[in-house]
Amino acid sequence: MNLNAIDSELLKTVADLHKIPRGAFNIRKNGQAVERRSSDHIQVIPKTDKPGIDIIVAPGTKNEAVHIPVLITLSGVVDVVYNTIEIGEGADVVVVAGCGIHNPGSERSQHDGIHEIIVRKGARMRYIEKHYGGGEGTGERVLNPKTILIMEEDSVVEMELTQIKGVDSTLRDTKAKLAKGANLTIVERLMTHGRQEAISDMLIELEGEGCSAKIISRSVARDDSKQVFRPVVVAKAPAKGHVECDSIIMDRGKISSSPAISAEHPEAQLTHEAAIGKIAQEQLMKLETLGLSEKEAEDVILRGFLQ
Amino acid sequence: MNLNAIDSELLKTVADLHKIPRGAFNIRKNGQAVERRSSDHIQVIPKTDKPGIDIIVAPGTKNEAVHIPVLITLSGVVDVVYNTIEIGEGADVVVVAGCGIHNPGSERSQHDGIHEIIVRKGARMRYIEKHYGGGEGTGERVLNPKTILIMEEDSVVEMELTQIKGVDSTLRDTKAKLAKGANLTIVERLMTHGRQEAISDMLIELEGEGCSAKIISRSVARDDSKQVFRPVVVAKAPAKGHVECDSIIMDRGKISSSPAISAEHPEAQLTHEAAIGKIAQEQLMKLETLGLSEKEAEDVILRGFLQ
Repeated sequence: MNLNAIDSELLKTVADLHKIPRGAFNIRKNGQAVERRSSDHIQVIPKTDKPGIDIIVAPGTKNEAVHIPVLITLSGVVDVVYNTIEIGEGADVVVVAGCGIHNPGSERSQHDGIHEIIVRKGARMRYIEKHYGGGEGTGERVLNPKTILIMEEDSVVEMELTQIKGVDSTLRDTKAKLAKGANLTIVERLMTHGRQEAISDMLIELEGEGCSAKIISRSVARDDSKQVFRPVVVAKAPAKGHVECDSIIMDRGKISSSPAISAEHPEAQLTHEAAIGKIAQEQLMKLETLGLSEKEAEDVILRGFLQ
Repeated sequence: MNLNAIDSELLKTVADLHKIPRGAFNIRKNGQAVERRSSDHIQVIPKTDKPGIDIIVAPGTKNEAVHIPVLITLSGVVDVVYNTIEIGEGADVVVVAGCGIHNPGSERSQHDGIHEIIVRKGARMRYIEKHYGGGEGTGERVLNPKTILIMEEDSVVEMELTQIKGVDSTLRDTKAKLAKGANLTIVERLMTHGRQEAISDMLIELEGEGCSAKIISRSVARDDSKQVFRPVVVAKAPAKGHVECDSIIMDRGKISSSPAISAEHPEAQLTHEAAIGKIAQEQLMKLETLGLSEKEAEDVILRGFLQ
């Protein structure tokens, strides 16, 4: 496989990959599949009707990971990809699905990843998705991830969705339906700067008895950037949901947060909390008295907040 | 003034009035002014261009109240009224503005009260509004209050908005703009039962430096009733806002809560919290071990919750 220095840097940033991974993977670059590999238990199959892949994890597969990073290193690329992921009954796997755009030119480069994920009965999935934009060009770096998650009975999913930096515009759309006993945790971390804009919509439907969801959002808006959060949790069954949005605004950043909780069953228990503010002055001062500059102190606090 | 037993009962329920009040008042019944009185410092003047009154509180007026209850005792009445209230600089007054509908028949009776309230520099107002529906008829009892509040520098407003019971449909719309140093507290309490529906929209704009708003909503949805809360707090200045929604659902009641906070200034501090759930079983059991029936225990808990 032919990866240059930029490719390697992006892979490291968005998928923690320092080299071609062991096990199953698919690497997509500038709208083309660069290389893929299936393992004994995880099949990676290109779709025939549209761009994208099917990932089929065999029932009972344990302690395996599949990496499906996407790289864009050209200016003016618009890449739309449809991935379907099926985690077989009782499996326990990690899916790493990041996207990095290095835009060297003046045209917009964009990746829209539409992921349909089915987690079968009793299966567990940890899903990690990091987004990053770089490159010296003036062209926009746009990432619009759409995730549709179906969780069957007693399945467990942890999603870590992170926008590290450098993404000019993002419209994040996450939908999940939970059956009986399913358990979902989503941790979303967004950092915007410059004139970037980020919108995150979530719709979590608690449909089965005893299922539960926890949504944690942490965000930092610096410079003139803007962020909008609209997580919605609807409980149609005796189920529990909790939404937590914490945001730091700096410079002229703007953040709007409107989590909605909706109880359509009398045994539902739903809660949410949100807070938007600047970095606590006491925290800054404490670190400055330890010898850090204001800038260093801010960085330490933001790093801790986003981790 | 000619008040019958039903009128007196409604007046007591919505305005805590056991007889004609001292000081300024206006009593409106079935779309007509029944009686009004101005005081030395509070003028109550009928509008000439549309139904409603102007209430002008002289600057510096202290420890006075004005009562402006509305009664509807007929079936098939649709009463729309426009009231303008101006609280003069440095005044400190109480405004009591409730509405009671006793619908004896099968047609809908409705009151839409549009209140524009200007609270001048340094003035304080406590505003109490209770809504109640009764009567043996099958006709709907509808109450749509709209309140537009302008708060000048350093003014202080406390609003207590309560829907006691018996209101079949309500669309509550509350808007407020706060200048420098202004301080607003809104406590809204809603109880719905049967097939009732309640929607409460609020838009609170924090425009001046150092102003602050606190919105507290407590609601109970019983039987097949539905409630929707959409409080929005926007901070355009170094200001503080807090929204708190606590809801109890019983039977087949449904509640949706989506407070939005939006920080458009880096020194803004906004928070919100919401919780929807049923009555805590431990609380019920504790009261039942003290000898209360389940029904009595529920009533005690709900009463406490809504007070």
